[in-house]
Amino acid sequence: MSNSYEELSNLITEKINKLNFIKEPESLYIPVDYCLKNGGKRIRPLMTLLGCKLFGGNTDDAVNAAIGLELLHNFTLMHDDIMDEAPIRRGQPSVYKKWGTNTAILSGDAMLVLAYNHILEVPEDKLKAILEVFNTSITEVCEGQQYDMDFETRKIVSEDEYLNMIRLKTAVLPANCLKIGAMISGNASEEDIFNLYKFGEYFGLAFQIQDDWLDIYSDEKVFGKKTGGDILAKKKTWLFIKALSKADDKLKKTLTDAFYSDCLENNEKISIVKSVYNALNISNIAIREIELYFNQALSYLDKINVDDEDKKPLRDLAKGLMNREY
Amino acid sequence: MSNSYEELSNLITEKINKLNFIKEPESLYIPVDYCLKNGGKRIRPLMTLLGCKLFGGNTDDAVNAAIGLELLHNFTLMHDDIMDEAPIRRGQPSVYKKWGTNTAILSGDAMLVLAYNHILEVPEDKLKAILEVFNTSITEVCEGQQYDMDFETRKIVSEDEYLNMIRLKTAVLPANCLKIGAMISGNASEEDIFNLYKFGEYFGLAFQIQDDWLDIYSDEKVFGKKTGGDILAKKKTWLFIKALSKADDKLKKTLTDAFYSDCLENNEKISIVKSVYNALNISNIAIREIELYFNQALSYLDKINVDDEDKKPLRDLAKGLMNREY
Repeated sequence: MSNSYEELSNLITEKINKLNFIKEPESLYIPVDYCLKNGGKRIRPLMTLLGCKLFGGNTDDAVNAAIGLELLHNFTLMHDDIMDEAPIRRGQPSVYKKWGTNTAILSGDAMLVLAYNHILEVPEDKLKAILEVFNTSITEVCEGQQYDMDFETRKIVSEDEYLNMIRLKTAVLPANCLKIGAMISGNASEEDIFNLYKFGEYFGLAFQIQDDWLDIYSDEKVFGKKTGGDILAKKKTWLFIKALSKADDKLKKTLTDAFYSDCLENNEKISIVKSVYNALNISNIAIREIELYFNQALSYLDKINVDDEDKKPLRDLAKGLMNREY
Repeated sequence: MSNSYEELSNLITEKINKLNFIKEPESLYIPVDYCLKNGGKRIRPLMTLLGCKLFGGNTDDAVNAAIGLELLHNFTLMHDDIMDEAPIRRGQPSVYKKWGTNTAILSGDAMLVLAYNHILEVPEDKLKAILEVFNTSITEVCEGQQYDMDFETRKIVSEDEYLNMIRLKTAVLPANCLKIGAMISGNASEEDIFNLYKFGEYFGLAFQIQDDWLDIYSDEKVFGKKTGGDILAKKKTWLFIKALSKADDKLKKTLTDAFYSDCLENNEKISIVKSVYNALNISNIAIREIELYFNQALSYLDKINVDDEDKKPLRDLAKGLMNREY
């Protein structure tokens, strides 16, 4: 009997909304509660449950780990928002903006420990192996964030470097959520776990490049915010890096002059950068790249030794996320 | 065969100096290495080994946990220095001062995961129980730091509130180091572990109140820095709280006017506050309080069911630390 991913998603949302983290000192825990309850797609806990279910595991065994992984994700957001000076998170003031840097640091730290507390609830014979994966996930997300910050002050970032950065910062966590779910099931071979991890990793790469694409080419009404934010933030996205690598000297100059300008008006800046992207056909090249990674992800899913029918919720989730418009 | 605490201390220092955390991205890991190698008394790892040794355990089994606990301690320092805007740590620029807030946040996070990685190396049958203690330690240190920050903006802090704050921020970690060491030994009863924990906790309280006392009454030549730093930072120490509670209205006004003044010259401010302390005999009251907690600590050590000779290194360490002048 296979739940749809929507059913499991509702289960997760319900569980998370029932959690109560608020205790003394409230100034430490209210921001934890605020950050976690402030929505989000809950992709990571869902992947944990789906990874477990794929191999016939009982999702009840994976719920605490799933919540732990969502807490971990939100911890990284709370700290990243300080570093990125991001005032808004999911349409609401970020913790850093609402309560200040110190609160976002310390409540983030407390949140990470809460994540570990939830991971401790996995079956004890799997605890050490799962913690090793959990620790690796956090380390890699930190490394990805560090590369991202390092790239801000560099003029040149190669496509490979960019891909490695988003792999660490974005792709490994969902991949490890799937892996931890599969480990909890107790029924997955090492080979299957490897293939499931690679599915998650390639999916994560596709997802992030799509994120870069949506920032420029999405429908603003559906996207829910103005496009071009990455350009204004001088973020070296996949599109920018690809455009730089394909541009001749003249286009390169037009692109970088506009991109790094501190004088151009916002709309004009976005318009120039976009015109270079269009001249280089970057939108289509990006779409092809997204499809390439997405298909690679699906090919790893195909390899896993379980009935195709059991892969449906995971395939549906991945396809649903790739068809998003925001 | 009982090692002296100095021998174990040298072992720890040697082990820590041999660790190499530096890898790519170096901008993430160099600050971790810098922070950990920058000295310190290494009290926490030493307590871990002594807790293990007290019950006849093999200290080799506890070395990784000891290093994990020192990494944890240094993680808290790296983040606290941001929150406290502390430019100097152990005579060197703090990570926050040297590399900026973002580095101190992210390298701190990476350091905490390294701490967990070391804890994973404890004997697997004790992993879950030890991680529960480890998680509790971090949570309580965060709660203590939050109370400390909350107290900054409050006019009145009671002595009980202050003691609870330093218990969480300072005392529980050494207490839990002893406890984890004892757990690793595999030979300690619950009652013995409880008594050892209480020894660490009361010792920690004595140590922190002594820290407050040293800031005012130590010999500047031995202390290595100017006294009165806590007064200038408007830190509500045990001495300040005690003085407020004992002062009549007139002395209270003199004390708070000077303490909160933004106009007084530094030396004058320290001199007025100190004169109120002296009028109220605060130095001696503090010394008596420190002795009270220290003796309470020793009485818990006495209760532990091991040969008195085996308690010597721990007693020597505690006495050594209480006789410090800096």
